[in-house]
Amino acid sequence: MNHRPSAFATPLSPPIGVFDSGIGGLTVVAELRRALPSERILYVGDTARVPYGGKSRETVTRYAREISDLLESERAKLIVVACNTASALALPSLSSDHSVPMIGVLEPGASAAVKATRSGKIGVIGTRATIASDAYGKAIRAIDQELDVTAVACPLLVPLIEEGLFEDEVTGTLLGRYLAPMLAEGIDTLVLGCTHYPLLKKTIARICGDGVTLVDSAENCALAVRELLATLPSTAPDPRLDILLTDSSEGFLRIAEKSLELSIDSLEIRRVGG
Amino acid sequence: MNHRPSAFATPLSPPIGVFDSGIGGLTVVAELRRALPSERILYVGDTARVPYGGKSRETVTRYAREISDLLESERAKLIVVACNTASALALPSLSSDHSVPMIGVLEPGASAAVKATRSGKIGVIGTRATIASDAYGKAIRAIDQELDVTAVACPLLVPLIEEGLFEDEVTGTLLGRYLAPMLAEGIDTLVLGCTHYPLLKKTIARICGDGVTLVDSAENCALAVRELLATLPSTAPDPRLDILLTDSSEGFLRIAEKSLELSIDSLEIRRVGG
Repeated sequence: MNHRPSAFATPLSPPIGVFDSGIGGLTVVAELRRALPSERILYVGDTARVPYGGKSRETVTRYAREISDLLESERAKLIVVACNTASALALPSLSSDHSVPMIGVLEPGASAAVKATRSGKIGVIGTRATIASDAYGKAIRAIDQELDVTAVACPLLVPLIEEGLFEDEVTGTLLGRYLAPMLAEGIDTLVLGCTHYPLLKKTIARICGDGVTLVDSAENCALAVRELLATLPSTAPDPRLDILLTDSSEGFLRIAEKSLELSIDSLEIRRVGG
Repeated sequence: MNHRPSAFATPLSPPIGVFDSGIGGLTVVAELRRALPSERILYVGDTARVPYGGKSRETVTRYAREISDLLESERAKLIVVACNTASALALPSLSSDHSVPMIGVLEPGASAAVKATRSGKIGVIGTRATIASDAYGKAIRAIDQELDVTAVACPLLVPLIEEGLFEDEVTGTLLGRYLAPMLAEGIDTLVLGCTHYPLLKKTIARICGDGVTLVDSAENCALAVRELLATLPSTAPDPRLDILLTDSSEGFLRIAEKSLELSIDSLEIRRVGG
């Protein structure tokens, strides 16, 4: 971890720390901004090692720990793991070795899906690592073991989203393939189990049709953060958004900024870990 | 760098060290195996930090240096940078701080393209970082400054290849888009400027038609290695292929092994850097 003093001036409020492997977690930031308009948010994107979705539990946990240490050193009052892969693979062990409260995107999404389903058939889409961990299936069945969960890994969606191909013919073709088996099984609820996916919500909704409720993990995570924050000492209003990236990242930051209508107050590149 | 002793038994021959960000460099290994059937090859895939193609020069250079240090500690007699992004961004500075001879994929590909063209119009495809560096353009114009080079970044090809979608409709659609501007400009030679791309050779050839010569950087690199090796002291024949990955990697290693008809003697996962 990086021990040099923070680059931010001292009067800034302790932030809500948010991190993701890359820029996808900005969908969570956009929802946090809506739910908690006066909070300072410090976002870290681990762009030097993006993506996490095809990597092992051990490696993802090591990376997530380094970023959490950085956020703690920046006085984060709580840490939001705005990455489904890190939430699925690393959150339990991270929580146990950080004193700051941590919250992931997985539990809020799972509990919203349980509330939404009528047929008891829930679909989940995510990265290869998230789906292989069966973390959503476990979290959903821990609430109601009668529910039927079908999960499909969609490894090409993140690259397509990072290219800005939100409504492209190619994205539609691949989404159609990924979703067909779940739709054939009659799901009535679909969990968008990757923080990039809300950027494809329109196309996913079109393919799924009116009979399927989309559960956006970003939105549900923001509501859970608001509840958790209400239990912590309040801090001075400071509605800034500061961004730290572990490598210079062209392109997608601007795509996300524009399509999420975010206003970024500072952007710094800082090396973390190896 | 990792200082623990090599896991390999001591009688093994000093290998040709080969590395890439991931598994794509195995296309170079397949060509080396054909060109130099009795050599031991030690391949390192930096799967913990794959891909390099969208990352900065500084970060790619740091990663490539750590992997080169590892190969040197494994007694590599020469190091092949089987990654176009690392060849374009890091090779000059790496060569200056390693005593073992190093060779990249870029110069052999550029010189083969210059030999192949008749019209003087050469196309180059590669990752975002390779194309942004203009490394192929510079290498080609250094040989003949009259040549006209058109380069296009193809950021979605690596994810498609890693999913094994070599002849998929989606791959064809995206390749058509990427190649159209170059074909309209009348190129007669196309450099496959990423070690993953030879796996798409058939589809690329179909889209380009008979009038365009494809320059495979893997093939040309293997020939350059054979020439360089002839200038070094010979070592005992030991036709092994040993593979080290920096993170456990599912799927694509098996896809590559099968489609490249490689026989792998050992596979080890070893942590490198941070």
